[in-house]
Amino acid sequence: MKKLKRSARLVEMTQYLLYRPHSLIPLTTFAERYQAAKSSISEDLAIIKEVFEAEGFGELQTLAGAAGGVIFIPKYPKTASLELIRKLCGMLEQPERILPGEYLYMSDLLGKPAIMNEIGKIFATAFADRDIDVVMTVETKGIPLAYATATFLNLPVVIVRRDSQVTEGSTVSINYVSGSNRRIQTMSLARRALKEQSKVLIIDDFMRAGGTIQGMMDLLQEFKATVQGVGVLVESEDVRERLVTDYVSLARLSVDSKARSLTAVPGNYFD
Amino acid sequence: MKKLKRSARLVEMTQYLLYRPHSLIPLTTFAERYQAAKSSISEDLAIIKEVFEAEGFGELQTLAGAAGGVIFIPKYPKTASLELIRKLCGMLEQPERILPGEYLYMSDLLGKPAIMNEIGKIFATAFADRDIDVVMTVETKGIPLAYATATFLNLPVVIVRRDSQVTEGSTVSINYVSGSNRRIQTMSLARRALKEQSKVLIIDDFMRAGGTIQGMMDLLQEFKATVQGVGVLVESEDVRERLVTDYVSLARLSVDSKARSLTAVPGNYFD
Repeated sequence: MKKLKRSARLVEMTQYLLYRPHSLIPLTTFAERYQAAKSSISEDLAIIKEVFEAEGFGELQTLAGAAGGVIFIPKYPKTASLELIRKLCGMLEQPERILPGEYLYMSDLLGKPAIMNEIGKIFATAFADRDIDVVMTVETKGIPLAYATATFLNLPVVIVRRDSQVTEGSTVSINYVSGSNRRIQTMSLARRALKEQSKVLIIDDFMRAGGTIQGMMDLLQEFKATVQGVGVLVESEDVRERLVTDYVSLARLSVDSKARSLTAVPGNYFD
Repeated sequence: MKKLKRSARLVEMTQYLLYRPHSLIPLTTFAERYQAAKSSISEDLAIIKEVFEAEGFGELQTLAGAAGGVIFIPKYPKTASLELIRKLCGMLEQPERILPGEYLYMSDLLGKPAIMNEIGKIFATAFADRDIDVVMTVETKGIPLAYATATFLNLPVVIVRRDSQVTEGSTVSINYVSGSNRRIQTMSLARRALKEQSKVLIIDDFMRAGGTIQGMMDLLQEFKATVQGVGVLVESEDVRERLVTDYVSLARLSVDSKARSLTAVPGNYFD
């Protein structure tokens, strides 16, 4: 790359860091990339750090020493994320979202990448300090959230299939009882999709009693994996007994299907 | 927002633009945001434009006049995208990817958000000039690619389900013959998920004869929608007759299952 002036370096470095969250970047990488002295790079990073932290993009952590460098940790400030979730709750409360069987229509919201990316950043903030190897979800609606979260945490994603006809070689399947319709269902994961002993963050769009998430936890036992966290976008409050107790929710929903009304409030992450 | 110096403005504006592709941002938005004169903002944008274009992040288009402003169009340079796809082809050629039935294991690659985001940017470049309202895919493996593409095009995503028990109210279902196993299958889409007359970009991870994509096209007819483009990550070359002829592929794969060997080369996008 040709030698750049400070103004151009700032634009380039900002882009470089934003696209490489949770990655240690040695100062020499920047110094060589821009043919600049390490001291100049340090000054650039100080400017970027100040803006990132003041504007709530995240933290820029500096590690000193030979193996040192800089790591961008995306962080969504709590007040700003509460504001976003309140807006989302307003959208969730639209009565036309109630579907037969007390299901909730939210595919339009889940279909907006910009919203998914914001929510992924909130989850990445909530779980930034946990030791995680992989983000897991079950098809279908949790997938965009899992990818958005994994993007900001710089982690791979594993998708559990609801179908046992998976064409991915040897698979592990388990049966579970879905809380929503009380039927026995199957979920499967290819053996090669997940290393044994992996540390897993489970992400899903919706949790009622937690049967699906409990199913994923049971499946993880077959891989000797450990669950490092569970994040759900919306949890239903209309539940007598919950199978999963340790989780982060961003919104809580209750449906009065007789009155055809919905109430959505911020979830336990904001308690 | 407090008044920022140029160096801080450059960092902030870079972030602002990168997260808002294909969106017209009036200069007044920046001028008010940073309490700066429009002429200073124009100078900032000139610096950003130069770096974005020199480094291959994309174009910064300026629209003059009262309704004017700036639009960031992510563009992946052809040489850099070819380099990425060649690397991907190298990974696809690993013989342990061959599964029974000439299926190909690529969930590990599809599970890497960083790779998906790069490929989404290539698709967003390939279809940047088409008039598109929505990106569509069918569950499951195409979903991360569809979201990555939609993120860079600033469009919503619609996911067709393979299951007719969709709990999303009234749905339209069609039968189609999957090229890979020659069985009749069903795909469904909720009525409310797609407006009539929508202009649609179809994205999928893999195409053999094109039965699944042809199925999506048939389904779209039920919504009086038009297909503005089809993008597939990998197309199989081991096909006698293809149902779909107008598409963009990024890689071409042929499997010799007797010799257990794979050949992957860049797709028709690079022809």
